[in-house]
Amino acid sequence: MIDIKEQLLVNGDRLWSTIERSGEIGLGRTTGLCRLALTDADKEMRDVFMQWCKEAGCSVTVDQVGNIFARHAGADDSLAPVVIGSHLDTQVAGGKYDGILGVLAGLEVVRTLNDNKTETQRPIEVVCWTNEEGARFNPSMIASGAFSGIYDVDWVHDQKDDDGIRFGDELKRIGYDGDTPVGGRTLDSYFELHIEQGPLLEAEGIDVGFVIGGFKTYGMNIDVRGECAHSGPTPMDKRKNALIGASMLAVEVNDIGWRYHPDGRSTVPRMQVWPNKAGILPEWVQITVDFRHPDPAAAKKMVEELKQAMPKCCERANVEMEIVQSWEFGDEVFDSDLLDTMCDAAGKLNIPHKEMMSLAGHDAYYISLVAPTALIFSPCKDGITHNEAEHIEPEYTLPSVNVLLNAVIERANRIDS
Amino acid sequence: MIDIKEQLLVNGDRLWSTIERSGEIGLGRTTGLCRLALTDADKEMRDVFMQWCKEAGCSVTVDQVGNIFARHAGADDSLAPVVIGSHLDTQVAGGKYDGILGVLAGLEVVRTLNDNKTETQRPIEVVCWTNEEGARFNPSMIASGAFSGIYDVDWVHDQKDDDGIRFGDELKRIGYDGDTPVGGRTLDSYFELHIEQGPLLEAEGIDVGFVIGGFKTYGMNIDVRGECAHSGPTPMDKRKNALIGASMLAVEVNDIGWRYHPDGRSTVPRMQVWPNKAGILPEWVQITVDFRHPDPAAAKKMVEELKQAMPKCCERANVEMEIVQSWEFGDEVFDSDLLDTMCDAAGKLNIPHKEMMSLAGHDAYYISLVAPTALIFSPCKDGITHNEAEHIEPEYTLPSVNVLLNAVIERANRIDS
Repeated sequence: MIDIKEQLLVNGDRLWSTIERSGEIGLGRTTGLCRLALTDADKEMRDVFMQWCKEAGCSVTVDQVGNIFARHAGADDSLAPVVIGSHLDTQVAGGKYDGILGVLAGLEVVRTLNDNKTETQRPIEVVCWTNEEGARFNPSMIASGAFSGIYDVDWVHDQKDDDGIRFGDELKRIGYDGDTPVGGRTLDSYFELHIEQGPLLEAEGIDVGFVIGGFKTYGMNIDVRGECAHSGPTPMDKRKNALIGASMLAVEVNDIGWRYHPDGRSTVPRMQVWPNKAGILPEWVQITVDFRHPDPAAAKKMVEELKQAMPKCCERANVEMEIVQSWEFGDEVFDSDLLDTMCDAAGKLNIPHKEMMSLAGHDAYYISLVAPTALIFSPCKDGITHNEAEHIEPEYTLPSVNVLLNAVIERANRIDS
Repeated sequence: MIDIKEQLLVNGDRLWSTIERSGEIGLGRTTGLCRLALTDADKEMRDVFMQWCKEAGCSVTVDQVGNIFARHAGADDSLAPVVIGSHLDTQVAGGKYDGILGVLAGLEVVRTLNDNKTETQRPIEVVCWTNEEGARFNPSMIASGAFSGIYDVDWVHDQKDDDGIRFGDELKRIGYDGDTPVGGRTLDSYFELHIEQGPLLEAEGIDVGFVIGGFKTYGMNIDVRGECAHSGPTPMDKRKNALIGASMLAVEVNDIGWRYHPDGRSTVPRMQVWPNKAGILPEWVQITVDFRHPDPAAAKKMVEELKQAMPKCCERANVEMEIVQSWEFGDEVFDSDLLDTMCDAAGKLNIPHKEMMSLAGHDAYYISLVAPTALIFSPCKDGITHNEAEHIEPEYTLPSVNVLLNAVIERANRIDS
């Protein structure tokens, strides 16, 4: 076992210039990014990331759903790797840090090991998961889900964006349809560093959060079916306006969230309408809803209330509704050994830290099903995220990257685990 | 004055084969059409129509908003013309007859005059108005509106479809940016034959309806503004979900319609959502609404109720709303002389007819502002329209075309009007 005498520190300027370079690819409307999965911008970012990884001496593989693994060899390269990562795709009006920080911090860990000519026993891999946001292809975290066996590879390939374009076709088009099988191998551990996407760390002046659990989340797509008719001659009692049914349901979903306030929350982020033209009653609407609550039983009750509201809305709007797709996450368990390792690293670095809950979905949730997993939060300004105004500062962020670095080194040198 | 000894009759088979040829251009999903204004399909239909008109000996001009006028010369070609027409564009899931019947019946009138070597004193023009449906460019009846001076030509050119493509650019692209000035000339009269888009004529077994008035219609686009945020961490009381505000307003609009049932009706045909992606609260929604009532005062009250509901929805959803565009029609007056002429023609042909109200918008509404106007209805199956199942039969329809023919001849030979 290699003896690390002291805590290492990352090169903050280098990490920041790397993040800033990423922030130039797929510009949004104002200060943020619009880098949807498997678009040209995503390809450009992936190409740059691949180049960086190769320059850092990593061997790079791409799996069949486009997940990129950059491997820094271990002293015993036959050992299961310690994996660090997150995602490089963003929302339509996304920030420059959500997901991106976790991937590029992983790269910075490798670069720091190189700087210090430090070899770990285990290999270290930096991973970029495809389409975490779900902003282009639904559901979110689709490729880490495939890695952990939740989704079948062919099913992932068949998912379509709002223009009807297949995930598999876009993956091939941008040249990231790798041949490595998805998942099915042992990871020693998985570390994901992410911005908090909430205001707590900043408000309390704490540099690092260790996530001990998530909000239980239930999401679903619901089809509402009515009938096209002319908005003039058709009297109210002959109408089957799918958009009215969907609107009634959206209001119900919102009311459910308020009944579980402040812990619970419910969202209608999306409504697809067809034909969506003046003068004609819409025939079809697909409405996306999600419910989140720290208490899984309460989250489940929120879904039950939705299911009770649906027939009422159907009757009132004279339409039909059907849940056509559903997903859930958030009651996965993070690893206590990794938590200890991270606390130890933070202690040695004298960095203030706390345990906390995650309110958003993360690739770490799915990976926790197949490997010991740690999720680390660093503060973000005012908790703003999924908004171009999302912002972080080096002094807010570097403490968490240094904790990540030292916890990863500690773990990568443990061969008895 | 030329003396017409007897009532002429159109060639029903020829008219029907013409309508069927039109029904092959811009096929919909099932049995109907999707021939949106200024698309390739619309261009193809216009090209075919221009060819037919030329073959019928007409001189054809196109004005600056793409309205096509095919002129059959009169004995005294300096007299103001009798104009017959409607539109050739359709809804996204439209039928093969809505609008189309009126244009092609006009062509059949000219062809019948040719068959009979009949010359009228006044010239007769067949017109195709651009973008009547409003299915691609809002508002509907935009080009007949421009002809009657409601809309400025440059403003019409600047209207954009849902993909941000300008009316003026599409008009040029398909080669229908004519150089004839829009409107500004005297029409002797305007006749529009249209399917009823309601069930009354069919139910009562009456072949022809003469429209004596319309439902007063108020339409508007309302912008709802919220703020993008993550659907997980953002608690209910920090949210500004534009889609929830819009949904609340949609439900209110629907409730208003029910309060005025059975005479009044209210519709939400359309909602544009941005960014409309899973995981993110929508920042902007544009909702289209329309209110219709045979009593103009009641229609106005419906709009007042909407305006009262808006602040309530804004407060409840923590968003802002603004009416960004509005339009109205439906209290125009149809011409009593033309009504007499049509009744007389129907009487001589022994065709059952009745006076009735129109519930839909028609180009005739706007043209009635600048010329004596008649709107004629013929039955359609089950009143179904703006739906691919829209259907008519020759035996239902030809009586109204023959009334049109003979009323037009009568009018085109009146030079004292």
